[in-house]
Amino acid sequence: MGLRVDLNADVGESFGPWRMGDDASILDVVTSANVACGFHAGDPSVMDATVARAAERGVAVGAHPGYLDLRGFGRRVLAVPPDELAADVLYQLGALAAIARARGVRLTHVKPHGALYNQCAVEPTIARAVARAVAGFGDGLALVGLATSACARDAAREHGLVFAGEAFADRRYEGDGTLAARAGKDAVIHDPPAAAAQALRIVRDGRVTARDGSIVTVRAETVCVHGDTPGAAAIAREVRRVLEEAGVAVRALGP
Amino acid sequence: MGLRVDLNADVGESFGPWRMGDDASILDVVTSANVACGFHAGDPSVMDATVARAAERGVAVGAHPGYLDLRGFGRRVLAVPPDELAADVLYQLGALAAIARARGVRLTHVKPHGALYNQCAVEPTIARAVARAVAGFGDGLALVGLATSACARDAAREHGLVFAGEAFADRRYEGDGTLAARAGKDAVIHDPPAAAAQALRIVRDGRVTARDGSIVTVRAETVCVHGDTPGAAAIAREVRRVLEEAGVAVRALGP
Amino acid sequence: MGLRVDLNADVGESFGPWRMGDDASILDVVTSANVACGFHAGDPSVMDATVARAAERGVAVGAHPGYLDLRGFGRRVLAVPPDELAADVLYQLGALAAIARARGVRLTHVKPHGALYNQCAVEPTIARAVARAVAGFGDGLALVGLATSACARDAAREHGLVFAGEAFADRRYEGDGTLAARAGKDAVIHDPPAAAAQALRIVRDGRVTARDGSIVTVRAETVCVHGDTPGAAAIAREVRRVLEEAGVAVRALGP
Amino acid sequence: MGLRVDLNADVGESFGPWRMGDDASILDVVTSANVACGFHAGDPSVMDATVARAAERGVAVGAHPGYLDLRGFGRRVLAVPPDELAADVLYQLGALAAIARARGVRLTHVKPHGALYNQCAVEPTIARAVARAVAGFGDGLALVGLATSACARDAAREHGLVFAGEAFADRRYEGDGTLAARAGKDAVIHDPPAAAAQALRIVRDGRVTARDGSIVTVRAETVCVHGDTPGAAAIAREVRRVLEEAGVAVRALGP
Repeated sequence: MGLRVDLNADVGESFGPWRMGDDASILDVVTSANVACGFHAGDPSVMDATVARAAERGVAVGAHPGYLDLRGFGRRVLAVPPDELAADVLYQLGALAAIARARGVRLTHVKPHGALYNQCAVEPTIARAVARAVAGFGDGLALVGLATSACARDAAREHGLVFAGEAFADRRYEGDGTLAARAGKDAVIHDPPAAAAQALRIVRDGRVTARDGSIVTVRAETVCVHGDTPGAAAIAREVRRVLEEAGVAVRALGP
Repeated sequence: MGLRVDLNADVGESFGPWRMGDDASILDVVTSANVACGFHAGDPSVMDATVARAAERGVAVGAHPGYLDLRGFGRRVLAVPPDELAADVLYQLGALAAIARARGVRLTHVKPHGALYNQCAVEPTIARAVARAVAGFGDGLALVGLATSACARDAAREHGLVFAGEAFADRRYEGDGTLAARAGKDAVIHDPPAAAAQALRIVRDGRVTARDGSIVTVRAETVCVHGDTPGAAAIAREVRRVLEEAGVAVRALGP
Repeated sequence: MGLRVDLNADVGESFGPWRMGDDASILDVVTSANVACGFHAGDPSVMDATVARAAERGVAVGAHPGYLDLRGFGRRVLAVPPDELAADVLYQLGALAAIARARGVRLTHVKPHGALYNQCAVEPTIARAVARAVAGFGDGLALVGLATSACARDAAREHGLVFAGEAFADRRYEGDGTLAARAGKDAVIHDPPAAAAQALRIVRDGRVTARDGSIVTVRAETVCVHGDTPGAAAIAREVRRVLEEAGVAVRALGP
Repeated sequence: MGLRVDLNADVGESFGPWRMGDDASILDVVTSANVACGFHAGDPSVMDATVARAAERGVAVGAHPGYLDLRGFGRRVLAVPPDELAADVLYQLGALAAIARARGVRLTHVKPHGALYNQCAVEPTIARAVARAVAGFGDGLALVGLATSACARDAAREHGLVFAGEAFADRRYEGDGTLAARAGKDAVIHDPPAAAAQALRIVRDGRVTARDGSIVTVRAETVCVHGDTPGAAAIAREVRRVLEEAGVAVRALGP
């Protein structure tokens, strides 16, 4: 059986009158869309338009919940107690699910955003609160988390969820498997062939070369490309082209 | 076949550290709870706690969506275009539905809040936007609206929804069937026996005496009692007692 | 004594991670900046950066308060009672004034935003609430309002404020002196020479040709150019060039 | 010269339709009021009403800025970068100052709220960001901070501010001078005579007995009493009575 991977992007991160990212272009390339749910970005109208466009393109739709922090775009850690966090995540999943259902679309997965994503990779109480919410929602949603961390994976297993390990085409890794801090030099890969090469190496070999030159093991079911950086769509297209040329089936998560 | 009516109250209107209403007492009396969904009041934790308590008491749970206006408690008209409004309502329904589902509870109805409720009784474009959202959500939710107005009823019918006309035990009516403005003198009935008598007259005779002494026809499937005024629970108990004593079956909406 | 006019633009309307407008370019052209105060757009960091840049360019800084509605960008009417509105406006003025003061900048004027601006031109209770707030703030701030309406002008006079009538270079007028609705065809002038010609005619002749061909009288102390439309800076530069070429002194409000 | 101390309370923490605390009673007892500024609690109307009442009672008015987190009441740490935090604090100070100025009231001090207060006692970058904002605002405002920590005191000194060390009448201390965590047993003193005795001991002897029985040195210019707990006003009155009976002058900060 051949290699296979999902290609995902965070979309629907406009808000009110403000635009972000080139969703139309990125949705022509990826197989899964993580749609912001109004806490860190997105609003009901943006969510609706994003789901409609993803459905048109045959792109799988998942929720991209975050901390309640529009001003900080969900990138600032907010010390939310686990029970409140689980309720916040359920709220966001349900809000998107209803908007999707009115468009005839079922959600397939959940990928936490920003600081919440990062916390899920290091704080078991946070990862468990998210997993509990996803399990409470039901409907067989997969939980997406950092492939190189056991934290979210373990929380998913405890709650009987399918876990999809995620790798990044356009972000550099540290030797311990964490992502290089976004603010740092070289944290983001802007060169499409370089991003594509990193994606292919991850999918084919299960490895990536970290910033310090060491080799990190990465078993990923899904590869993230970004839509909010200049040239993002070009990177995404190159990643997909190179993967498919190498015989990798680029398909949404699921059986 | 005997008379029957649902008794409903707006609950879950606390927010963050701030308490509102005596939900515990009111949920011991009513048969349906309209749970605020975070736009005008409520937050995910409050919603979760409210659904849990309603479920314990066997009270039917519905959504109570409002305008996005915490500061004004959804009582200030906000000129939301219909498409945005439909998306806002779907968002709120879905958010509550997910929190309820994680508690094993299915929503039964939707009752708009405050200024949105009032607009639904007079503005067909608003009523239709709400009805469209409820229809898009599916699941057979009933739409609750002012019994003395055709506006929401017509919108519900156009969208194939069950409509439940609502009357008020503790609010006075004007001669044209509208509710007396809350700010006005005598707008609210504080005396439990008076509220109970008005409720019984509505349920048994389909009539109420307006402030100007005229008789207004009111065909209601559900009667609202309030939970956010002092003595609200006492009024609700008296309404229920008097209705049951008169042989009226007090039961949630539905077949 | 020669002709003189102020050239103003709305700036600082980015929010959190979201950019809006080309403030850097527009601040190179105008003499007064209306800085959003966080209710409809802007946040404390954006406000600070905007004030700093305006100060560098020698541009006068004023407040641009709006309704509390980020999602709707302050363009949706919100039925705020006058006393609350006055408090909301004071809040916004003070917030900007403190950020400006820490940069050594004093505010010179107040121009309401969006739906609030429009309401000030037609609703005396709204105009008075705003004028009361500006008067309460003190410091001799001028109130900017639609030149072709008496409503805001009267409210300013009642509260002892300097009023600055505003005309628009890039918006078409109706025969009754109101602005053409933004959604309508031809509401916005995209051609730089046409906008400049309209501005010059207003400043020199006190007149503008409305969409229906009639001539409207416009006595304006300040002319608005927009910064949030494509090509906005090019229009602003052409307006300024044409005005100065015709001998008009383009200078901030004040003695 | 006799002993002297300021008695302060956090007030104006209602929001929109939700009430919190018994401000009217507490403002009859204290000499300084810390008024919430809309980020963690309070809104412009509440701020205005609170300032008006404080002014009537001759109570000094200060700002009580917090993290932007109504839902969490500013009690959850939010990782705001220092420059953004300084802008956020300036925004809140200015907003309150303008509302106060329209009432003829000048601010006298700033006391951070909740998680921000706690961070100021342990994180120099946070304390400095707050101190920088207070210094940028000017007007000689004193910065209030935990008396038993050098962190805020040092930041105030670096920025040329008057620092007022604060002690708590109704909170227990740990042996290291920190406050006992609010969630813990015995963290809050509910008995009026016990709170009054702790206040007097602090003011007269500069000492308090910690939970572990050790003696902690506390040099405080101001003592906090709470207004949001049941019986708060009774505690405040007893604290004031006992202090005055012991000959301590209870007066607002300042020369």
